[in-house]
Amino acid sequence: MVDRRDVALAHRLADAAGAAILPHFRRLDGVEVKPDATPVTAADHAAEAAIRRLLATERPDDGVLGEEFDDVVARNGRLWVLDPIDGTKAFTAGKPTFTTLIALFEDGAPVLGVIDQPYNRERWVGHDGGAWFNGRPLATRRGTPLARAVVSSTAPELFEAEADRAAFARVEREVAYLSWGGDAYAYGLLAMGCVDLIVEMQLKPFDLGPLAPIVEGAGGRITDWRGRPLGLASDGRICAGGDADLHAATLARLAG
Amino acid sequence: MVDRRDVALAHRLADAAGAAILPHFRRLDGVEVKPDATPVTAADHAAEAAIRRLLATERPDDGVLGEEFDDVVARNGRLWVLDPIDGTKAFTAGKPTFTTLIALFEDGAPVLGVIDQPYNRERWVGHDGGAWFNGRPLATRRGTPLARAVVSSTAPELFEAEADRAAFARVEREVAYLSWGGDAYAYGLLAMGCVDLIVEMQLKPFDLGPLAPIVEGAGGRITDWRGRPLGLASDGRICAGGDADLHAATLARLAG
Repeated sequence: MVDRRDVALAHRLADAAGAAILPHFRRLDGVEVKPDATPVTAADHAAEAAIRRLLATERPDDGVLGEEFDDVVARNGRLWVLDPIDGTKAFTAGKPTFTTLIALFEDGAPVLGVIDQPYNRERWVGHDGGAWFNGRPLATRRGTPLARAVVSSTAPELFEAEADRAAFARVEREVAYLSWGGDAYAYGLLAMGCVDLIVEMQLKPFDLGPLAPIVEGAGGRITDWRGRPLGLASDGRICAGGDADLHAATLARLAG
Repeated sequence: MVDRRDVALAHRLADAAGAAILPHFRRLDGVEVKPDATPVTAADHAAEAAIRRLLATERPDDGVLGEEFDDVVARNGRLWVLDPIDGTKAFTAGKPTFTTLIALFEDGAPVLGVIDQPYNRERWVGHDGGAWFNGRPLATRRGTPLARAVVSSTAPELFEAEADRAAFARVEREVAYLSWGGDAYAYGLLAMGCVDLIVEMQLKPFDLGPLAPIVEGAGGRITDWRGRPLGLASDGRICAGGDADLHAATLARLAG
Protein backbone atom coordinates (compact mmCIF):
# COMPACT_ATOMS: atom_id res chain seq x y z
CA MET A 1 0.00 0.00 0.00
CA VAL A 2 1.57 3.27 -1.11
CA ASP A 3 1.56 5.92 1.60
CA ARG A 4 -1.03 8.61 0.80
CA ARG A 5 1.62 11.21 1.53
CA ASP A 6 3.74 9.82 -1.30
CA VAL A 7 0.77 10.10 -3.66
CA ALA A 8 0.18 13.68 -2.55
CA LEU A 9 3.87 14.46 -3.01
CA ALA A 10 3.86 12.96 -6.51
CA HIS A 11 1.07 15.41 -7.44
CA ARG A 12 3.13 18.29 -6.06
CA LEU A 13 6.17 17.14 -8.03
CA ALA A 14 4.11 17.06 -11.23
CA ASP A 15 2.68 20.51 -10.48
CA ALA A 16 6.18 21.89 -9.96
CA ALA A 17 7.47 20.35 -13.18
CA GLY A 18 4.53 21.69 -15.18
CA ALA A 19 5.03 25.19 -13.80
CA ALA A 20 8.68 25.02 -14.85
CA ILE A 21 7.92 23.69 -18.32
CA LEU A 22 5.00 25.74 -19.58
CA PRO A 23 6.83 29.09 -19.91
CA HIS A 24 9.15 27.33 -22.40
CA PHE A 25 6.53 25.50 -24.45
CA ARG A 26 6.29 26.80 -28.02
CA ARG A 27 8.98 29.37 -27.34
CA LEU A 28 12.42 29.25 -28.88
CA ASP A 29 14.93 28.81 -26.15
CA GLY A 30 17.93 26.64 -25.91
CA VAL A 31 17.08 23.65 -28.01
CA GLU A 32 20.34 21.79 -28.12
CA VAL A 33 20.83 18.49 -29.92
CA LYS A 34 22.69 15.80 -27.98
CA PRO A 35 25.15 13.45 -29.70
CA ASP A 36 22.38 10.85 -30.10
CA ALA A 37 20.28 13.46 -31.99
CA THR A 38 17.72 13.90 -29.21
CA PRO A 39 17.00 17.48 -28.23
CA VAL A 40 17.43 18.88 -24.76
CA THR A 41 15.82 22.10 -23.72
CA ALA A 42 16.13 24.54 -20.89
CA ALA A 43 12.70 23.31 -19.82
CA ASP A 44 14.09 19.81 -19.17
CA HIS A 45 16.68 21.16 -16.80
CA ALA A 46 14.29 23.56 -15.07
CA ALA A 47 11.64 20.91 -14.54
CA GLU A 48 13.97 18.28 -13.16
CA ALA A 49 15.63 20.84 -10.91
CA ALA A 50 12.21 21.85 -9.54
CA ILE A 51 11.31 18.23 -8.78
CA ARG A 52 14.68 17.56 -7.16
CA ARG A 53 14.42 20.63 -4.94
CA LEU A 54 11.13 19.35 -3.53
CA LEU A 55 12.45 15.81 -3.07
CA ALA A 56 15.57 17.05 -1.30
CA THR A 57 13.38 18.88 1.19
CA GLU A 58 10.55 16.42 1.58
CA ARG A 59 12.28 13.04 1.21
CA PRO A 60 15.97 13.58 1.93
CA ASP A 61 16.66 9.86 2.40
CA ASP A 62 15.08 8.72 -0.88
CA GLY A 63 17.18 8.09 -3.97
CA VAL A 64 16.67 9.98 -7.23
CA LEU A 65 17.36 8.81 -10.76
CA GLY A 66 16.73 11.40 -13.46
CA GLU A 67 17.70 12.08 -17.04
CA GLU A 68 19.36 15.45 -16.55
CA PHE A 69 21.34 15.35 -13.28
CA ASP A 70 23.46 12.97 -11.24
CA ASP A 71 21.91 10.13 -9.32
CA VAL A 72 21.12 10.44 -5.63
CA VAL A 73 21.67 7.14 -3.87
CA ALA A 74 18.84 5.86 -1.69
CA ARG A 75 19.40 5.18 1.99
CA ASN A 76 16.06 3.41 2.45
CA GLY A 77 15.25 1.29 -0.63
CA ARG A 78 13.06 4.04 -2.09
CA LEU A 79 13.93 5.58 -5.45
CA TRP A 80 12.21 8.35 -7.39
CA VAL A 81 12.68 7.95 -11.13
CA LEU A 82 12.15 11.09 -13.22
CA ASP A 83 11.89 12.10 -16.82
CA PRO A 84 11.12 15.82 -16.71
CA ILE A 85 10.11 15.91 -20.40
CA ASP A 86 9.38 12.64 -22.09
CA GLY A 87 8.87 13.21 -25.80
CA THR A 88 11.38 16.02 -26.11
CA LYS A 89 11.15 15.99 -29.90
CA ALA A 90 7.38 16.40 -29.66
CA PHE A 91 7.91 19.16 -27.05
CA THR A 92 10.29 21.17 -29.17
CA ALA A 93 7.99 20.72 -32.20
CA GLY A 94 5.15 22.18 -30.12
CA LYS A 95 3.08 18.99 -29.93
CA PRO A 96 1.04 18.68 -26.72
CA THR A 97 1.90 15.02 -26.25
CA PHE A 98 5.11 15.48 -24.27
CA THR A 99 4.77 14.52 -20.60
CA THR A 100 6.52 14.59 -17.27
CA LEU A 101 7.15 11.12 -15.85
CA ILE A 102 7.46 10.49 -12.14
CA ALA A 103 7.69 7.09 -10.49
CA LEU A 104 8.43 5.77 -7.04
CA PHE A 105 10.25 2.45 -6.89
CA GLU A 106 10.37 0.42 -3.69
CA ASP A 107 12.95 -2.34 -3.54
CA GLY A 108 13.37 -2.18 -7.32
CA ALA A 109 9.71 -2.34 -8.32
CA PRO A 110 7.58 0.63 -9.46
CA VAL A 111 4.75 1.18 -6.99
CA LEU A 112 3.51 4.65 -7.96
CA GLY A 113 3.48 6.35 -11.34
CA VAL A 114 2.45 9.72 -12.76
CA ILE A 115 2.23 10.76 -16.41
CA ASP A 116 1.48 14.48 -16.56
CA GLN A 117 0.65 16.68 -19.55
CA PRO A 118 0.67 20.24 -18.22
CA TYR A 119 -0.48 22.09 -21.37
CA ASN A 120 -3.65 20.01 -21.67
CA ARG A 121 -3.92 19.62 -17.89
CA GLU A 122 -4.03 15.85 -18.17
CA ARG A 123 -2.68 13.66 -15.40
CA TRP A 124 -2.62 9.88 -15.21
CA VAL A 125 -1.78 8.31 -11.82
CA GLY A 126 -1.41 4.63 -10.95
CA HIS A 127 -0.74 2.79 -7.70
CA ASP A 128 -2.07 -0.12 -5.62
CA GLY A 129 -3.83 -1.74 -8.56
CA GLY A 130 -5.81 1.33 -9.58
CA ALA A 131 -5.33 4.08 -12.15
CA TRP A 132 -6.94 7.49 -12.51
CA PHE A 133 -7.14 10.26 -15.11
CA ASN A 134 -7.63 13.66 -13.52
CA GLY A 135 -9.08 11.80 -10.55
CA ARG A 136 -11.45 9.57 -12.55
CA PRO A 137 -10.90 5.78 -12.39
CA LEU A 138 -9.61 4.20 -15.59
CA ALA A 139 -10.12 0.91 -17.36
CA THR A 140 -8.45 -0.35 -20.50
CA ARG A 141 -10.51 -1.65 -23.41
CA ARG A 142 -10.87 -5.43 -23.06
CA GLY A 143 -11.59 -8.21 -25.51
CA THR A 144 -10.10 -6.57 -28.61
CA PRO A 145 -8.58 -9.13 -30.98
CA LEU A 146 -5.32 -8.30 -32.71
CA ALA A 147 -7.16 -7.74 -36.00
CA ARG A 148 -9.17 -4.86 -34.50
CA ALA A 149 -6.43 -3.38 -32.34
CA VAL A 150 -5.57 0.33 -32.47
CA VAL A 151 -1.80 0.42 -32.09
CA SER A 152 0.54 3.25 -31.15
CA SER A 153 4.31 3.38 -31.47
CA THR A 154 6.59 6.38 -31.10
CA ALA A 155 8.88 6.20 -34.12
CA PRO A 156 9.84 3.63 -36.76
CA GLU A 157 13.54 4.50 -36.54
CA LEU A 158 13.64 3.11 -32.98
CA PHE A 159 13.51 -0.37 -34.53
CA GLU A 160 17.10 -0.22 -35.67
CA ALA A 161 18.09 -3.86 -36.01
CA GLU A 162 16.61 -5.96 -38.79
CA ALA A 163 15.36 -8.58 -36.30
CA ASP A 164 13.48 -5.94 -34.32
CA ARG A 165 11.97 -4.45 -37.47
CA ALA A 166 10.85 -7.91 -38.53
CA ALA A 167 9.33 -8.64 -35.12
CA PHE A 168 7.39 -5.37 -35.21
CA ALA A 169 6.27 -6.03 -38.80
CA ARG A 170 4.78 -9.37 -37.74
CA VAL A 171 2.55 -7.46 -35.30
CA GLU A 172 1.86 -4.50 -37.56
CA ARG A 173 0.55 -6.54 -40.46
CA GLU A 174 -2.16 -8.13 -38.30
CA VAL A 175 -3.59 -5.08 -36.52
CA ALA A 176 -6.37 -2.69 -37.56
CA TYR A 177 -4.08 0.33 -37.79
CA LEU A 178 -1.15 2.15 -36.36
CA SER A 179 -0.75 5.73 -35.16
CA TRP A 180 2.84 6.99 -34.94
CA GLY A 181 4.03 9.35 -32.22
CA GLY A 182 2.93 9.46 -28.63
CA ASP A 183 5.83 8.62 -26.35
CA ALA A 184 4.62 7.92 -22.80
CA TYR A 185 1.39 9.83 -23.50
CA ALA A 186 0.23 6.78 -25.48
CA TYR A 187 0.35 4.63 -22.32
CA GLY A 188 -2.13 7.02 -20.73
CA LEU A 189 -4.35 6.58 -23.78
CA LEU A 190 -4.04 2.81 -23.45
CA ALA A 191 -5.05 3.04 -19.79
CA MET A 192 -8.12 5.06 -20.90
CA GLY A 193 -9.22 2.45 -23.43
CA CYS A 194 -8.44 4.49 -26.57
CA VAL A 195 -5.31 2.59 -27.65
CA ASP A 196 -5.28 -1.21 -27.49
CA LEU A 197 -1.64 -2.00 -27.98
CA ILE A 198 1.80 -0.37 -27.79
CA VAL A 199 4.92 -2.06 -29.09
CA GLU A 200 8.17 -0.14 -29.06
CA MET A 201 11.77 -0.23 -27.98
CA GLN A 202 14.72 1.87 -26.85
CA LEU A 203 12.92 3.21 -23.80
CA LYS A 204 15.35 4.40 -21.12
CA PRO A 205 14.96 3.50 -17.43
CA PHE A 206 13.47 6.95 -16.67
CA ASP A 207 10.96 6.51 -19.51
CA LEU A 208 9.32 3.42 -18.14
CA GLY A 209 8.92 4.11 -14.43
CA PRO A 210 5.24 5.08 -14.31
CA LEU A 211 4.04 2.87 -17.15
CA ALA A 212 3.40 -0.36 -15.23
CA PRO A 213 1.54 1.19 -12.26
CA ILE A 214 -0.77 3.06 -14.67
CA VAL A 215 -1.31 0.40 -17.34
CA GLU A 216 -1.74 -2.43 -14.84
CA GLY A 217 -3.81 -0.23 -12.52
CA ALA A 218 -6.24 0.18 -15.41
CA GLY A 219 -6.40 -3.57 -16.04
CA GLY A 220 -3.86 -3.81 -18.87
CA ARG A 221 -0.72 -5.85 -19.12
CA ILE A 222 2.78 -4.51 -19.73
CA THR A 223 6.09 -6.34 -19.93
CA ASP A 224 9.18 -6.46 -22.07
CA TRP A 225 9.00 -8.43 -25.35
CA ARG A 226 9.78 -11.66 -23.52
CA GLY A 227 7.02 -11.26 -20.96
CA ARG A 228 9.24 -10.11 -18.09
CA PRO A 229 8.09 -7.33 -15.75
CA LEU A 230 9.59 -3.90 -16.36
CA GLY A 231 12.31 -2.69 -14.05
CA LEU A 232 15.30 -0.41 -14.07
CA ALA A 233 17.37 -3.13 -15.75
CA SER A 234 14.85 -3.76 -18.56
CA ASP A 235 16.22 -3.77 -22.10
CA GLY A 236 13.89 -0.98 -23.24
CA ARG A 237 11.57 -3.20 -25.32
CA ILE A 238 7.96 -2.72 -24.28
CA CYS A 239 4.74 -4.55 -25.09
CA ALA A 240 1.58 -3.17 -23.49
CA GLY A 241 -1.92 -4.45 -24.18
CA GLY A 242 -5.41 -3.64 -22.97
CA ASP A 243 -5.84 -7.16 -21.65
CA ALA A 244 -3.81 -10.31 -21.04
CA ASP A 245 -5.06 -12.08 -24.21
CA LEU A 246 -4.08 -9.30 -26.58
CA HIS A 247 -0.76 -8.94 -24.79
CA ALA A 248 -0.05 -12.69 -25.05
CA ALA A 249 -1.02 -12.80 -28.74
CA THR A 250 1.35 -9.90 -29.41
CA LEU A 251 4.24 -11.47 -27.50
CA ALA A 252 3.78 -14.61 -29.61
CA ARG A 253 4.10 -12.56 -32.84
CA LEU A 254 7.16 -10.74 -31.48
CA ALA A 255 8.81 -14.06 -30.66
CA GLY A 256 8.37 -15.14 -34.30
CA MET B 1 -9.80 40.59 -49.70
CA VAL B 2 -11.90 37.92 -48.02
CA ASP B 3 -15.28 39.20 -46.88
CA ARG B 4 -15.34 39.54 -43.08
CA ARG B 5 -18.65 37.69 -43.08
CA ASP B 6 -16.91 34.66 -44.60
CA VAL B 7 -14.27 34.77 -41.87
CA ALA B 8 -16.99 34.98 -39.22
CA LEU B 9 -18.85 32.11 -40.84
CA ALA B 10 -15.69 29.98 -40.92
CA HIS B 11 -15.41 30.43 -37.14
CA ARG B 12 -19.05 29.34 -36.73
CA LEU B 13 -18.42 26.29 -38.91
CA ALA B 14 -15.44 25.30 -36.77
CA ASP B 15 -17.47 25.83 -33.59
CA ALA B 16 -20.25 23.61 -34.93
CA ALA B 17 -17.82 20.87 -35.94
CA GLY B 18 -16.10 20.94 -32.55
CA ALA B 19 -19.42 20.68 -30.73
CA ALA B 20 -20.30 17.65 -32.85
CA ILE B 21 -16.92 15.97 -32.35
CA LEU B 22 -16.13 16.39 -28.66
CA PRO B 23 -18.87 14.07 -27.29
CA HIS B 24 -17.23 11.27 -29.30
CA PHE B 25 -13.59 11.94 -28.40
CA ARG B 26 -12.07 9.16 -26.30
CA ARG B 27 -15.35 7.26 -26.32
CA LEU B 28 -15.80 4.01 -28.13
CA ASP B 29 -18.39 4.52 -30.79
CA GLY B 30 -18.52 3.32 -34.31
CA VAL B 31 -14.91 3.17 -35.32
CA GLU B 32 -15.14 1.50 -38.70
CA VAL B 33 -12.15 0.74 -40.86
CA LYS B 34 -12.48 1.65 -44.53
CA PRO B 35 -11.01 -0.56 -47.28
CA ASP B 36 -7.88 1.63 -47.34
CA ALA B 37 -7.43 0.92 -43.58
CA THR B 38 -8.29 4.45 -42.48
CA PRO B 39 -10.85 4.66 -39.71
CA VAL B 40 -14.11 6.55 -39.97
CA THR B 41 -16.08 7.46 -36.92
CA ALA B 42 -19.55 8.66 -36.14
CA ALA B 43 -17.89 11.95 -35.19
CA ASP B 44 -16.68 12.48 -38.78
CA HIS B 45 -20.20 12.18 -40.11
CA ALA B 46 -21.74 14.30 -37.36
CA ALA B 47 -19.20 17.09 -37.77
CA GLU B 48 -19.43 17.32 -41.53
CA ALA B 49 -23.24 17.20 -41.37
CA ALA B 50 -23.19 20.08 -38.87
CA ILE B 51 -20.98 22.19 -41.14
CA ARG B 52 -23.07 21.41 -44.21
CA ARG B 53 -26.30 22.35 -42.45
CA LEU B 54 -24.88 25.80 -41.71
CA LEU B 55 -23.52 26.24 -45.23
CA ALA B 56 -26.83 25.19 -46.80
CA THR B 57 -28.59 27.91 -44.81
CA GLU B 58 -25.98 30.66 -44.90
CA ARG B 59 -24.37 30.19 -48.35
CA PRO B 60 -26.83 28.21 -50.48
CA ASP B 61 -25.09 29.12 -53.75
CA ASP B 62 -21.59 28.06 -52.65
CA GLY B 63 -20.19 24.66 -53.54
CA VAL B 64 -19.09 22.11 -50.92
CA LEU B 65 -16.44 19.42 -51.20
CA GLY B 66 -16.09 17.18 -48.17
CA GLU B 67 -14.73 13.80 -47.27
CA GLU B 68 -17.93 12.19 -46.00
CA PHE B 69 -20.81 13.32 -48.24
CA ASP B 70 -21.54 14.08 -51.89
CA ASP B 71 -20.23 17.22 -53.52
CA VAL B 72 -22.42 20.31 -53.83
CA VAL B 73 -21.66 22.11 -57.08
CA ALA B 74 -20.92 25.82 -56.83
CA ARG B 75 -23.07 28.31 -58.73
CA ASN B 76 -20.74 31.23 -58.06
CA GLY B 77 -17.09 30.10 -58.19
CA ARG B 78 -16.93 29.70 -54.42
CA LEU B 79 -16.18 26.31 -52.91
CA TRP B 80 -15.94 25.26 -49.26
CA VAL B 81 -13.55 22.37 -48.78
CA LEU B 82 -13.99 20.36 -45.57
CA ASP B 83 -12.28 17.64 -43.65
CA PRO B 84 -14.36 17.21 -40.50
CA ILE B 85 -11.66 15.16 -38.76
CA ASP B 86 -8.17 15.28 -40.19
CA GLY B 87 -5.98 12.76 -38.41
CA THR B 88 -8.71 10.18 -37.86
CA LYS B 89 -6.20 7.60 -36.65
CA ALA B 90 -4.93 10.06 -34.04
CA PHE B 91 -8.54 10.89 -33.13
CA THR B 92 -9.56 7.29 -32.55
CA ALA B 93 -6.36 6.68 -30.59
CA GLY B 94 -7.32 9.61 -28.32
CA LYS B 95 -4.47 11.91 -29.39
CA PRO B 96 -5.37 15.61 -29.25
CA THR B 97 -3.72 16.38 -32.58
CA PHE B 98 -6.70 15.66 -34.83
CA THR B 99 -8.22 18.79 -36.34
CA THR B 100 -11.17 20.07 -38.34
CA LEU B 101 -10.13 21.61 -41.66
CA ILE B 102 -12.20 24.28 -43.38
CA ALA B 103 -11.17 26.23 -46.46
CA LEU B 104 -12.83 28.61 -48.85
CA PHE B 105 -11.65 28.45 -52.46
CA GLU B 106 -12.42 31.23 -54.89
CA ASP B 107 -11.91 30.43 -58.57
CA GLY B 108 -9.82 27.39 -57.64
CA ALA B 109 -7.44 29.04 -55.16
CA PRO B 110 -7.66 28.77 -51.35
CA VAL B 111 -8.30 32.22 -49.88
CA LEU B 112 -9.35 31.38 -46.31
CA GLY B 113 -8.30 28.48 -44.11
CA VAL B 114 -9.07 27.21 -40.61
CA ILE B 115 -7.34 24.43 -38.67
CA ASP B 116 -9.28 23.82 -35.46
CA GLN B 117 -8.41 21.59 -32.50
CA PRO B 118 -11.53 21.57 -30.32
CA TYR B 119 -10.24 19.54 -27.35
CA ASN B 120 -7.30 21.90 -26.76
CA ARG B 121 -9.30 24.93 -27.97
CA GLU B 122 -6.66 25.78 -30.55
CA ARG B 123 -7.61 27.52 -33.77
CA TRP B 124 -5.36 28.63 -36.61
CA VAL B 125 -6.87 30.95 -39.22
CA GLY B 126 -5.24 32.34 -42.39
CA HIS B 127 -6.41 34.76 -45.06
CA ASP B 128 -5.27 37.88 -46.91
CA GLY B 129 -1.60 37.31 -46.16
CA GLY B 130 -2.03 36.99 -42.39
CA ALA B 131 -2.38 34.09 -39.98
CA TRP B 132 -3.60 33.95 -36.39
CA PHE B 133 -3.64 31.45 -33.51
CA ASN B 134 -6.58 32.02 -31.20
CA GLY B 135 -6.61 35.58 -32.47
CA ARG B 136 -2.87 36.23 -32.03
CA PRO B 137 -0.80 37.02 -35.17
CA LEU B 138 1.62 34.30 -36.22
CA ALA B 139 5.05 34.22 -37.79
CA THR B 140 7.08 31.22 -38.84
CA ARG B 141 10.67 30.77 -37.65
CA ARG B 142 13.01 32.25 -40.26
CA GLY B 143 16.63 31.67 -41.14
CA THR B 144 16.87 28.06 -40.01
CA PRO B 145 19.31 26.06 -42.14
CA LEU B 146 18.39 22.50 -43.08
CA ALA B 147 20.93 21.14 -40.59
CA ARG B 148 19.05 22.75 -37.67
CA ALA B 149 15.53 22.17 -38.94
CA VAL B 150 12.87 20.54 -36.75
CA VAL B 151 10.87 18.39 -39.16
CA SER B 152 7.44 16.85 -38.85
CA SER B 153 5.87 14.19 -41.04
CA THR B 154 2.71 12.20 -40.41
CA ALA B 155 3.70 8.61 -41.12
CA PRO B 156 6.55 6.75 -42.80
CA GLU B 157 4.21 4.34 -44.58
CA LEU B 158 2.80 7.21 -46.65
CA PHE B 159 6.06 7.11 -48.64
CA GLU B 160 5.07 3.95 -50.48
CA ALA B 161 7.15 4.05 -53.64
CA GLU B 162 10.89 3.54 -53.45
CA ALA B 163 11.56 6.83 -55.26
CA ASP B 164 9.48 8.76 -52.72
CA ARG B 165 11.19 7.06 -49.80
CA ALA B 166 14.56 7.91 -51.32
CA ALA B 167 13.56 11.55 -51.86
CA PHE B 168 12.42 11.84 -48.24
CA ALA B 169 15.57 10.13 -46.99
CA ARG B 170 17.71 12.75 -48.79
CA VAL B 171 15.96 15.41 -46.69
CA GLU B 172 15.81 13.43 -43.45
CA ARG B 173 19.51 12.70 -43.29
CA GLU B 174 20.37 16.41 -43.37
CA VAL B 175 17.95 17.80 -40.76
CA ALA B 176 18.33 18.16 -36.99
CA TYR B 177 15.54 15.74 -36.15
CA LEU B 178 12.16 14.44 -37.10
CA SER B 179 8.96 14.11 -35.10
CA TRP B 180 6.40 11.65 -36.50
CA GLY B 181 2.65 12.22 -36.35
CA GLY B 182 0.84 15.48 -36.57
CA ASP B 183 -1.36 15.51 -39.65
CA ALA B 184 -2.59 19.03 -40.41
CA TYR B 185 -1.93 20.07 -36.80
CA ALA B 186 1.77 20.20 -37.70
CA TYR B 187 1.12 22.99 -40.24
CA GLY B 188 -0.29 25.07 -37.41
CA LEU B 189 2.91 24.39 -35.47
CA LEU B 190 4.95 25.44 -38.49
CA ALA B 191 2.95 28.68 -38.72
CA MET B 192 3.75 29.27 -35.01
CA GLY B 193 7.48 28.85 -35.50
CA CYS B 194 7.82 25.53 -33.61
CA VAL B 195 8.29 23.28 -36.63
CA ASP B 196 10.59 24.39 -39.46
CA LEU B 197 9.76 21.93 -42.19
CA ILE B 198 7.08 19.45 -43.22
CA VAL B 199 7.56 16.96 -46.03
CA GLU B 200 4.87 14.41 -46.70
CA MET B 201 2.63 12.93 -49.33
CA GLN B 202 -0.73 11.31 -49.97
CA LEU B 203 -2.70 14.31 -48.76
CA LYS B 204 -6.22 14.39 -50.18
CA PRO B 205 -7.80 17.55 -51.64
CA PHE B 206 -9.80 18.12 -48.42
CA ASP B 207 -6.61 17.76 -46.36
CA LEU B 208 -4.77 20.63 -47.95
CA GLY B 209 -7.36 23.40 -48.26
CA PRO B 210 -6.39 25.56 -45.28
CA LEU B 211 -2.68 24.85 -45.32
CA ALA B 212 -1.53 27.51 -47.80
CA PRO B 213 -3.54 30.43 -46.35
CA ILE B 214 -2.20 29.65 -42.86
CA VAL B 215 1.42 28.78 -43.69
CA GLU B 216 1.85 31.62 -46.18
CA GLY B 217 -0.09 34.02 -43.95
CA ALA B 218 2.57 33.36 -41.29
CA GLY B 219 5.42 33.99 -43.73
CA GLY B 220 6.19 30.42 -44.71
CA ARG B 221 6.25 28.78 -48.09
CA ILE B 222 4.20 25.76 -49.14
CA THR B 223 4.01 23.99 -52.49
CA ASP B 224 4.06 20.49 -53.91
CA TRP B 225 7.45 18.77 -54.27
CA ARG B 226 7.99 20.46 -57.62
CA GLY B 227 7.37 23.97 -56.34
CA ARG B 228 3.85 24.34 -57.71
CA PRO B 229 1.13 26.01 -55.65
CA LEU B 230 -1.35 23.71 -53.92
CA GLY B 231 -4.79 23.33 -55.42
CA LEU B 232 -7.56 20.79 -55.64
CA ALA B 233 -5.70 18.99 -58.44
CA SER B 234 -2.41 18.73 -56.51
CA ASP B 235 -0.80 15.31 -56.36
CA GLY B 236 -0.82 15.21 -52.55
CA ARG B 237 2.93 15.77 -52.10
CA ILE B 238 3.60 18.69 -49.78
CA CYS B 239 6.72 20.63 -48.87
CA ALA B 240 6.25 23.43 -46.34
CA GLY B 241 9.06 25.50 -44.87
CA GLY B 242 9.36 28.37 -42.43
CA ASP B 243 10.95 30.54 -45.08
CA ALA B 244 11.68 30.53 -48.81
CA ASP B 245 15.34 29.51 -48.42
CA LEU B 246 14.63 26.42 -46.34
CA HIS B 247 11.78 25.52 -48.68
CA ALA B 248 14.01 25.88 -51.75
CA ALA B 249 16.83 23.85 -50.16
CA THR B 250 14.35 21.09 -49.39
CA LEU B 251 12.87 21.06 -52.89
CA ALA B 252 16.40 20.67 -54.26
CA ARG B 253 16.95 17.56 -52.04
CA LEU B 254 13.58 16.13 -53.04
CA ALA B 255 14.42 16.55 -56.72
CA GLY B 256 17.60 14.48 -56.21
